[in-house]
Amino acid sequence: MADRGILIIVSGFSGAGKGTVMKRIMNDYNNYALSISATTRNPRAGEENGREYFFKTVEEFENMIANDQLIEYAQYVGNYYGTPKEYVESMLNQGKDVILEIEMQGAMKVKEKMPDTLLVFVTPPSAQELKNRLVGRGTEDMDTINARLKRANEEVYYMDKYDYLLINDDLDQCVKELHEIIQSEHSRVSRNINKINFFREDLKIFSEGE
Amino acid sequence: MADRGILIIVSGFSGAGKGTVMKRIMNDYNNYALSISATTRNPRAGEENGREYFFKTVEEFENMIANDQLIEYAQYVGNYYGTPKEYVESMLNQGKDVILEIEMQGAMKVKEKMPDTLLVFVTPPSAQELKNRLVGRGTEDMDTINARLKRANEEVYYMDKYDYLLINDDLDQCVKELHEIIQSEHSRVSRNINKINFFREDLKIFSEGE
Repeated sequence: MADRGILIIVSGFSGAGKGTVMKRIMNDYNNYALSISATTRNPRAGEENGREYFFKTVEEFENMIANDQLIEYAQYVGNYYGTPKEYVESMLNQGKDVILEIEMQGAMKVKEKMPDTLLVFVTPPSAQELKNRLVGRGTEDMDTINARLKRANEEVYYMDKYDYLLINDDLDQCVKELHEIIQSEHSRVSRNINKINFFREDLKIFSEGE
Repeated sequence: MADRGILIIVSGFSGAGKGTVMKRIMNDYNNYALSISATTRNPRAGEENGREYFFKTVEEFENMIANDQLIEYAQYVGNYYGTPKEYVESMLNQGKDVILEIEMQGAMKVKEKMPDTLLVFVTPPSAQELKNRLVGRGTEDMDTINARLKRANEEVYYMDKYDYLLINDDLDQCVKELHEIIQSEHSRVSRNINKINFFREDLKIFSEGE
């Protein structure tokens, strides 16, 4: 039987490159699953139920809340967004490490509910580089960019609530580091209490009197 | 300036293969330094001062104790053995990760003095495999082997005082895992408080009013 997987939350400033890192780690390694969010917003062209999102009616979503079927949820611009527990649990039980990309407040809620969750904070190497990347994307006007930068200045106070700080300077290096952080976590003593108990029992054959 | 290195203690049962893992990690990667112990025992043929050990007189060693120049020390078969602080500090300050192979009681003492120390416990995959390896070495009689196995049954109770449990099943894999555990530790938030403070300062340029 495979060991249970680890739930990993990846957060970071808008412009830190989280999306690209996620795509690459899913592409480069085969032991990860991305958590799929549920939402009440309408599907956009090309989006498929169960791929980008699990699309739900408001009633369905509120039932999921009532039945404690979401690890966390939030409302954003009039729509619900949340992380369905069943899908995550099923992947973890299959031994997959499940990656969940959410913002900091959601991350704190999940960590409270599931203390084994591994929290990784992704950041560019500097404030200037963060600004360069947001400007370089060319997809947002300066007002939006400034709002994002102002938000980063608030979000930085969550940094020390995380387990790992991942500096996204070189993409290849960053993806490799994230993979190694997750894999190394599998060897942490706190995640291996069953194995330690096994060794304690197993070594008893060598106790005095045998 | 290089970041400060990490002090890593590797412990494990006699027969776990620690020595081989140490040799291989020093050989395969160039960012590690092995801590060199000080001892009052006489050099054996081929041993060089500053390579296998720092050889000291009893008076010199007791002066080192009195001047708090040892991270830890113990007496064994009438001789002193200890870890000189100066050498370790100098390597850490150069950004080297310093590996120290000592037994569990010494490890606990170091962790108390230097809480940043990373503790790694190396074990074969099972009690039977531990016995096979000790017998397979063919260097000890059965009484000695049984004494070592009995000791392992006592030492296993230190396992959950360590940070990582490293199962030495396949040597290549074990060396790679140890390397990745140490490198990943460099990204732990608790080891990056200076960097977090840098980001907090750096991002202030985006605070309101700018």
